[in-house]
Amino acid sequence: MSLLIVGSVAFDAIETPFGKTDKIVGGAASYIALAASNFTKDSKLVAVVGEDFPEDFVADLRDRGVSTEGLQIKKGEKSFFWSGKYHTDMNTRDTLVTELNVLGDFDPIIPESYQDCEYLMLGNLSPKVQQTVIERLHHRPKLIVMDTMNFWMEIAMDDLKQTLSMVDVLSINDEEARLLSGEYSLVKAAIKIQQMGPKFLIIKKGENGALLFHGKEVFFAPALPLEDVFDPTGAGDTFAGGFIGYIAKTGDISFENMKNAIIFGSAMASFCVEKFGTERLVNLREDEMLSRINVFRNLVKFNLASV
Amino acid sequence: MSLLIVGSVAFDAIETPFGKTDKIVGGAASYIALAASNFTKDSKLVAVVGEDFPEDFVADLRDRGVSTEGLQIKKGEKSFFWSGKYHTDMNTRDTLVTELNVLGDFDPIIPESYQDCEYLMLGNLSPKVQQTVIERLHHRPKLIVMDTMNFWMEIAMDDLKQTLSMVDVLSINDEEARLLSGEYSLVKAAIKIQQMGPKFLIIKKGENGALLFHGKEVFFAPALPLEDVFDPTGAGDTFAGGFIGYIAKTGDISFENMKNAIIFGSAMASFCVEKFGTERLVNLREDEMLSRINVFRNLVKFNLASV
Repeated sequence: MSLLIVGSVAFDAIETPFGKTDKIVGGAASYIALAASNFTKDSKLVAVVGEDFPEDFVADLRDRGVSTEGLQIKKGEKSFFWSGKYHTDMNTRDTLVTELNVLGDFDPIIPESYQDCEYLMLGNLSPKVQQTVIERLHHRPKLIVMDTMNFWMEIAMDDLKQTLSMVDVLSINDEEARLLSGEYSLVKAAIKIQQMGPKFLIIKKGENGALLFHGKEVFFAPALPLEDVFDPTGAGDTFAGGFIGYIAKTGDISFENMKNAIIFGSAMASFCVEKFGTERLVNLREDEMLSRINVFRNLVKFNLASV
Repeated sequence: MSLLIVGSVAFDAIETPFGKTDKIVGGAASYIALAASNFTKDSKLVAVVGEDFPEDFVADLRDRGVSTEGLQIKKGEKSFFWSGKYHTDMNTRDTLVTELNVLGDFDPIIPESYQDCEYLMLGNLSPKVQQTVIERLHHRPKLIVMDTMNFWMEIAMDDLKQTLSMVDVLSINDEEARLLSGEYSLVKAAIKIQQMGPKFLIIKKGENGALLFHGKEVFFAPALPLEDVFDPTGAGDTFAGGFIGYIAKTGDISFENMKNAIIFGSAMASFCVEKFGTERLVNLREDEMLSRINVFRNLVKFNLASV
């Protein structure tokens, strides 16, 4: 069942305590599409790049079953570029460079062949652009999942709230949940945010796992304890890609199945951080993924037979 | 099977964003004994208080099956007193007052009737005192669990390492694990700390749950997402009390059973933080505890039938 992915496809330059990269492929939609391609071979990308973007990455996406008909390539222009440096704790980072380039006036054009999509994943972008995507679809998808970040809460809260009222699932981190709701307690934050629109709320806590809220129900997915987090860039997008990819594969949007989807998202994210950029995702084998799912299962499994 | 509990029994005065208390009963061993009494009616306390300590709290412990023969009451002296103020995030606090009083020269005398104990829980105390307790036991207990804190790592690392080499399970928080090992990654920290002695390591992460390491194996227990953490004082001790109480009840010191014990410890801690001091623990009913265990079970349960 068809999955529409909208988000940035871009260049990153990353520095972590483990090393630094030159310009490498990044962007929310790149990570989402790579992660989702492990679950569905029927996804469609809407994004914009400049003439400088490598054709071989786009060809690789196509080989993975991602339609790139909706990928706009702007002649004579440059792709979005972000550069950042992570601190020792890997949870905080400084942005060194942000060049919007083609993303500055991104008009998300939806090809006619994309109109049948059943699942929509809105990667982090301006809330206005995210909203435009929803409005341009002739039929509302069965499930709309949205990612966003603190930046939009600071400069475009009204637009963000408008977009939030149109989606089913919101995926943000703990700090963003607190900023958006004005509540320190994540349980209280979850109640307020669900009142803004999304009936499902995922709160990502990095190395501390993720929570899924739905009404009064809560599910907790651990993160895998890792010896080293090499580069956290894209982990949240990879998580979202694994989540929506698994939902699209199974066609089941129940709370119960979202729990499974979050475990797959967490597993995908645990691979993402093992190498710089998209490197680990590009080379991921299915047996590695399935074996990691078992690690997650064992990580939280207990047997209280003797109560 | 008999459980020996050693630690402080004391007074606290606590301020949190939700209110403040006058002097109330606190101390690691108070929380441990209260929590463990939900699982075993055969525990024995070694601690010291001053003449100012309320007899009714001691009588309540006895009613719960805690022997207080080893509780020294120092005539004309005052009990240990700590006062602190928590910040909004509840994860950090300022110590306002520390009066060692009777704890300054605490000599942990083990009554003869305590010598049969099979489980030993060393609450946070000077590592020298903890070591003395182990040395004064005629037979080594089946399992020795030890709690400690960053304070001892800063002023008595050599003593601490000596004591660590004599115990089976160490329970500390994430910050302390990093300080003790010199490693930021908790997985790397766990490897180093196990080399210091304890074959099992529990790393508590507050609202982010707890990890149990044993060799290459890892178990993750979530914390319950709560609307409000009213007062975190004693949560770690309560966790330890639930953990060792459950082990003593079941008599099973396997890694598999420790997973269950950690879930019970986490459940007990989730009650502890709901009220100031020991108030919630004192009034806890068994049906409430069992129902919370089910909440923990559901919190992490997923069913990947459709993989």
